Amino acid sequence: MNNKRIFDREIDELKDMILKMGVMVQSLIHKSIDALKKQDMDIAQSVISEGEKVDQLDVEINEKCIQLIALRQPEASDLRFLMTGVRISTDLERIGDLAEDIAQRVAELAGKPLLKPLVDIPKMDQLVENAVSLVLDAFIKKDAVKARTVWTIEKQVDELRDAVQDELAGIMNKNPDSVPQALPLLLISRHLERICDHATNIAEDVIYMVEGKIVKHNIEELKKIIGKDWKEKKKV
Amino acid sequence: MNNKRIFDREIDELKDMILKMGVMVQSLIHKSIDALKKQDMDIAQSVISEGEKVDQLDVEINEKCIQLIALRQPEASDLRFLMTGVRISTDLERIGDLAEDIAQRVAELAGKPLLKPLVDIPKMDQLVENAVSLVLDAFIKKDAVKARTVWTIEKQVDELRDAVQDELAGIMNKNPDSVPQALPLLLISRHLERICDHATNIAEDVIYMVEGKIVKHNIEELKKIIGKDWKEKKKV
Repeated sequence: MNNKRIFDREIDELKDMILKMGVMVQSLIHKSIDALKKQDMDIAQSVISEGEKVDQLDVEINEKCIQLIALRQPEASDLRFLMTGVRISTDLERIGDLAEDIAQRVAELAGKPLLKPLVDIPKMDQLVENAVSLVLDAFIKKDAVKARTVWTIEKQVDELRDAVQDELAGIMNKNPDSVPQALPLLLISRHLERICDHATNIAEDVIYMVEGKIVKHNIEELKKIIGKDWKEKKKV
Repeated sequence: MNNKRIFDREIDELKDMILKMGVMVQSLIHKSIDALKKQDMDIAQSVISEGEKVDQLDVEINEKCIQLIALRQPEASDLRFLMTGVRISTDLERIGDLAEDIAQRVAELAGKPLLKPLVDIPKMDQLVENAVSLVLDAFIKKDAVKARTVWTIEKQVDELRDAVQDELAGIMNKNPDSVPQALPLLLISRHLERICDHATNIAEDVIYMVEGKIVKHNIEELKKIIGKDWKEKKKV
């Protein structure tokens, strides 16, 4: 096997590791919300113990990239792919931490009945899991067009987060005793939103890798993607 | 000038860029809390517009690292330093985003008087600014011992966040009309805590760069650093 083919195989191994890490964090997000729905502390605990595997994989991906760069001295486009891999791994690790944060909020709700049937939070969960899956696929396929679609998901997630926050603020206002049950839910909606932010970070890195274009916080670019009902959320 | 000296000079330039980004995000954190204290929307707005400079510097640092790796094919220890630089730049960029988040919470408080004089949040601000400065210094000096001291700061920040949350939950409970003023403050304490988490991420990366040891979520390691009053916060 020639050097080029060995290198390609190693790049494939790296892609597999990143996809594995992606599947792992998606499963952690899913389980943390499942723990919330079922008020199941065993599931919440398992999210927290499995988080360590994500951290371990982050270190392995980082190492693999360093080794590939040091030993193979890749050409520019491969180097850029590897460097993007390192950044994405960092984002996935933070997503794992946020799933653990959700599990901790579930633990704070232990023994307290849910205020109301959950509607918007499971919707948010579905959207953010899709967002993570979508941006990783865009990375593997070097598909900037696909990466861009994450902002339509982010918009929906932000709207749901606003709805959750307004509803819970209303509940706390009417019934002050609900504060200990409402606060963890409110924070969970924030954790989910933050996970979606990490997915958009990954999308930004993918677009930059493919096109060399910075889309980070580029409001004109975002307007074009999202269309006319874009609200300038970065503006105070 | 020989190649080695040119490379060293370029590494120094990279260090300067990372330090500059560090100073920039510390100033954003400081200004966002200043905006809160003074209820000054102009300062809040300036935090949000300056955030873009941080994003730009993140891209430049990333580019500089890729160029140095591609052109100079650095030896193992320099390569590890550069890769750590890329990861740290990602964390600093997220810290900048969190300072913007604080500024947005300040904007939500516009026209609403503060519930009470601020005590714990300015203390948290001081601690997290110190944490950011400390871990960057540890990175530049490749000082793992210094990096480890960040966990004593994190512990104080977590305690203050708990105190803020308990106090605000009490206020909302007694006076339901305070919810719109209390919630942004509660979220600001969370944003500050999350900034401190990014500082500990940087410390973990520095320790790994220097010692090759993973400290991420290593509870035994943390216990040793913090001493006997360590609370197993990762445990539900």
